[in-house]
Amino acid sequence: MKGKRHIYLQMKSLEDARAIFFNRFSFDKCLQTETISAQDAAGRVTAQPIFARFSSPSYHAAAMDGIAVRAETTFGTTVDRPKQLRIGKDAFPVNTGHIMPEGTDAVIMIEHVVTLDEETVQIESAAYPWQHVRKVGEDIVATELILPQNHLITPYEIGALLNGGVFDVKVKKRPRVLIIPTGSELISCGDVKSGTPAQGLVVESNSAILGALIRECGGEYLSHPIIPDVFEDILSAVQGATAGDADIVIVSAGSSAGSEDYTASIIAELGEVLVHGVTIMPGKPTILGVIDNKPVIGNPGYTVSAIMAFEKFVQPLICRMLGISEPHRPGIKVSPTRKIASKLGIEEFVRVKLGRVRDTVVASSLPRGAGSVTTLTEADGIIRIPNHMEGVKAGEEVEAELLKDLVEIENTVVIVGSHDNTLDILANQMRVQDFRFGLSSSNVGSLGGLIALRNRYCHAAGSHLLDTDTGAYNISYIKRYLPDLRVKLVNLVYRQQGLIVSRGNPKEIKGIKDLARKDITFINRQAGSGTRILLDYEMAKLDIKPEEIKGYDQDEFTHMSVAVSVLSGATDTGLGIYAAARALNLDFIPIVTEEYDLVIPEEFFEDEKIQLMLEVIRSGPFKELVNQLGGYDTSKTGTVYPKM
Amino acid sequence: MKGKRHIYLQMKSLEDARAIFFNRFSFDKCLQTETISAQDAAGRVTAQPIFARFSSPSYHAAAMDGIAVRAETTFGTTVDRPKQLRIGKDAFPVNTGHIMPEGTDAVIMIEHVVTLDEETVQIESAAYPWQHVRKVGEDIVATELILPQNHLITPYEIGALLNGGVFDVKVKKRPRVLIIPTGSELISCGDVKSGTPAQGLVVESNSAILGALIRECGGEYLSHPIIPDVFEDILSAVQGATAGDADIVIVSAGSSAGSEDYTASIIAELGEVLVHGVTIMPGKPTILGVIDNKPVIGNPGYTVSAIMAFEKFVQPLICRMLGISEPHRPGIKVSPTRKIASKLGIEEFVRVKLGRVRDTVVASSLPRGAGSVTTLTEADGIIRIPNHMEGVKAGEEVEAELLKDLVEIENTVVIVGSHDNTLDILANQMRVQDFRFGLSSSNVGSLGGLIALRNRYCHAAGSHLLDTDTGAYNISYIKRYLPDLRVKLVNLVYRQQGLIVSRGNPKEIKGIKDLARKDITFINRQAGSGTRILLDYEMAKLDIKPEEIKGYDQDEFTHMSVAVSVLSGATDTGLGIYAAARALNLDFIPIVTEEYDLVIPEEFFEDEKIQLMLEVIRSGPFKELVNQLGGYDTSKTGTVYPKM
Repeated sequence: MKGKRHIYLQMKSLEDARAIFFNRFSFDKCLQTETISAQDAAGRVTAQPIFARFSSPSYHAAAMDGIAVRAETTFGTTVDRPKQLRIGKDAFPVNTGHIMPEGTDAVIMIEHVVTLDEETVQIESAAYPWQHVRKVGEDIVATELILPQNHLITPYEIGALLNGGVFDVKVKKRPRVLIIPTGSELISCGDVKSGTPAQGLVVESNSAILGALIRECGGEYLSHPIIPDVFEDILSAVQGATAGDADIVIVSAGSSAGSEDYTASIIAELGEVLVHGVTIMPGKPTILGVIDNKPVIGNPGYTVSAIMAFEKFVQPLICRMLGISEPHRPGIKVSPTRKIASKLGIEEFVRVKLGRVRDTVVASSLPRGAGSVTTLTEADGIIRIPNHMEGVKAGEEVEAELLKDLVEIENTVVIVGSHDNTLDILANQMRVQDFRFGLSSSNVGSLGGLIALRNRYCHAAGSHLLDTDTGAYNISYIKRYLPDLRVKLVNLVYRQQGLIVSRGNPKEIKGIKDLARKDITFINRQAGSGTRILLDYEMAKLDIKPEEIKGYDQDEFTHMSVAVSVLSGATDTGLGIYAAARALNLDFIPIVTEEYDLVIPEEFFEDEKIQLMLEVIRSGPFKELVNQLGGYDTSKTGTVYPKM
Repeated sequence: MKGKRHIYLQMKSLEDARAIFFNRFSFDKCLQTETISAQDAAGRVTAQPIFARFSSPSYHAAAMDGIAVRAETTFGTTVDRPKQLRIGKDAFPVNTGHIMPEGTDAVIMIEHVVTLDEETVQIESAAYPWQHVRKVGEDIVATELILPQNHLITPYEIGALLNGGVFDVKVKKRPRVLIIPTGSELISCGDVKSGTPAQGLVVESNSAILGALIRECGGEYLSHPIIPDVFEDILSAVQGATAGDADIVIVSAGSSAGSEDYTASIIAELGEVLVHGVTIMPGKPTILGVIDNKPVIGNPGYTVSAIMAFEKFVQPLICRMLGISEPHRPGIKVSPTRKIASKLGIEEFVRVKLGRVRDTVVASSLPRGAGSVTTLTEADGIIRIPNHMEGVKAGEEVEAELLKDLVEIENTVVIVGSHDNTLDILANQMRVQDFRFGLSSSNVGSLGGLIALRNRYCHAAGSHLLDTDTGAYNISYIKRYLPDLRVKLVNLVYRQQGLIVSRGNPKEIKGIKDLARKDITFINRQAGSGTRILLDYEMAKLDIKPEEIKGYDQDEFTHMSVAVSVLSGATDTGLGIYAAARALNLDFIPIVTEEYDLVIPEEFFEDEKIQLMLEVIRSGPFKELVNQLGGYDTSKTGTVYPKM
């Protein structure tokens, strides 16, 4: 069994997998109960119906400040026939909440009482019985049901419990979920000594994420040391875990079909594999099993798949054990900015960024790599594409599940276009200046940004398109691509573009002409990016042809990716900005200083969030932070060029 | 100053009060920061921007299980021209996540590799460079912004932090909120010895509710012993609190204008009262002040007002200190079942029960007494009526803020009509049977229920209307009031109606004829209730006139309220069900056994939640619990009478 590669059992649809898994267990009374103070009960689930022990109020209480009277004694009183009452005999001063003195059944508000002397007050209208009195049981009557069984207690309900005399409540114990992280390449962050894990090692992060999610949905997270990919070690860890006091066991990673993916074999050896493989993406290599009547989940190793498997299988399990409904994310109609393809027979969960542009919520899909947690942290929503669909078209209205508050999405400036490191700083400074507002940027190159503006997919485009005839930036492109849109140009920065090379410049690269050398491997930027246009312009000046440059046809989408390519030794050099080279401690050969502008349609210019963005761009702190990056000139930053 | 009654300073609108209060403080850096483990950071707020320390992946990693190769060596391979590779020389077995061996730049999936012998594998197609490889920085690039400042960290983001090498994060300390409960009538639940507070004392519950709300919105709750209504004691408590390490101080109760309402004077003496009185209901007697530059809130004593003042002033203060947006409750369009009146010049927040009936979400307003916490715990939503409006009309579409998940509201059976204690049991057993579903009941009497059905305000009506001509229940009334609606009748119970009297029956009441005695005070049920019709029928048989019964014109809306009236000594007797008498340990003189049915329109009969309700009604456990109440006969329970 060990060391062999496995194939999936027949994969199941999400719906079938959930039915098979959840129907396997009986959730009635599967959890122990505990009695806790009502004051600490928010977020816990009742284990039995809770009835009021006493009434609230438990006595007739004054509901106003004033004097308590017997209503009968006031009958017939009018402005013309006022009545005098003697304090302590037929009138008793009371404040709100006070017990009604014996024999009284009404309160006259202090505003309607005239004090004649220390012993006498006068009233000018009659009181009716029980006027301004909170009668016994007005709020809660002894013996009535305060909360049913299987009820998630809210802070408000703590008040009802205490007022009804329930000081202790019997609640379900939190389901205990044990996570066993497996993988020889994993290291726990506490064991990373020099600040960076040794080459080939990865910080184990899935259990911290899932642990926080477990707590968020009412469970208790039990941690476990990392187990290397050794069959016997994992087997004994799973055996120990299922024999212990965990209610649910998750084996993290090793759920796929690789030679070191032991989870399925181990569950099969100790119990039963119910499902191996679910037709969802991310989350396909999920194992659902049972050992000694305890649910055991083989969770995928890729972070996004791990989270998906958790949310589709473990979280519902926790809720079912507690006897409460699964939390439900609100949905919203969105319009994808690009076609989103999907495989038939796979239910896909596509992470999208959302932004409200005019009246439409536009959705840009994020990369789908299940290993990239940022595709989820940056996501505002998730579009579900069912098994039977091959994707959704650009502009087609579809439903997205919201991951963030809609208000937050509406307060976000959406920038699409060329990538620049100062956009990170801008995003942060906007949040610092006014926490209600944010900025989200997508990198599709300068031309892509203009096209997104034309399609009304964004509020602004970042652009540094050089007109090689005039030497001016952006204007001629805007005239060509946005003939019908009235826009303004706002200078964000001037910045140095140059060749990013390894530390010490071992291949002694001096300029663009060196790119044609046979010993140099180059990494390009994608077509339509301003940097690519700049390269072509510089190559033309030197009469270098694309086919002379090794790697001209390999491209990346951001300056940082180009720098990473150089850092990793995959390539010798690429054209990019100084900030990217400096961030990764690489060397830089300056080629040209270029203009980087934001293109903003006039219709958005007065919008509160755009105005905040402009204010931040023009602020001292923003320029200072930009200058600290190096390679930037902020002398024109914030200047608006209204004339097109 | 002490002991005097005060008048409010000029009251402020909610909007003005918020502006005056929030603008008084500078929230930049008002909180200290602390450094915590990234693993524990969910729910905390970043105190500075967080940049990645290293890239993720930090090395080129295999993205699939298979063999790692140098792509170049595979060029030209096809099915017709397969290529053999030697293990350890130009092919290296790798699993997902493994580091790419030196010199390799592509992975061929294991499914596409044929093992010839221990040293040789064969492939049938070429690999392209970086195929199935996760390159350095694909997820996160060193130095890039992971999270901006003022960001509420989610569980997902813990993954991004750890993957980006951020093991510790600097976050803002939780704002500390100290609550000083004041009031001579208060007792803490820990001090209630005999199980019930002494007469005239009330369990202090506001600080437990607000404490839980403080924690829920990211603050730390600091508790304080109860202070009696003694000026000097409260003064010194406030002085101590504002000099201590709390960031916000709440003085609970004493904010109104009574003779023992000292809060405003104390704040004025120690600092400054910014606002006294806000034109909102509930929440009018709110004081907003400042002492030593620290916000001090005089919170109303009535629970619902206290919660309202907290949510409008304290929670936003906590959020502003943390630098995050206030949480935002989703809204929904609803249709009120009755006119909701409101005073001009007051912004009212009306608690409503919601239910989806056909395509409309109907809203029934709950009692408005600010002292009744159940008016909030039972609420599904809140309708805001602005200052300039005198209310909303029945059926007028208005916006409600949702307090519960919409799905939960859609899964709730709405019953309107006569009150019966078994409805509590039904609600609980439905939740036990299937936690997705619930039941909400409003007591408006049997006729009110039929009218609600006619108006499509509910799914079912509880009814026990006696036809005094035929002796049959409900049918003739349905024909008269619902001529156009096809309904079914489902018997819930038969039950005993009788006279509820004090323990020991001191006035020796034996039957209806005693109600005409001069020494007997009676409490009636409201017109349109089945019990009132029954009374009138029994009175007619004995030829007793309404004016002969003292209290005939005083009425209550539920059996339990009638029983409470008897228990409190306010009246000698009332007509009601045995269960109500038994619940409060009162005596009971049986008069008649009557039929109590649910009237359900046929169009709802197949609805999943109605079917669940019927299943529960017919179940053994439901009948058993009903019989335990006493005074019920369940022999016909669940029987459907389809013929009308």
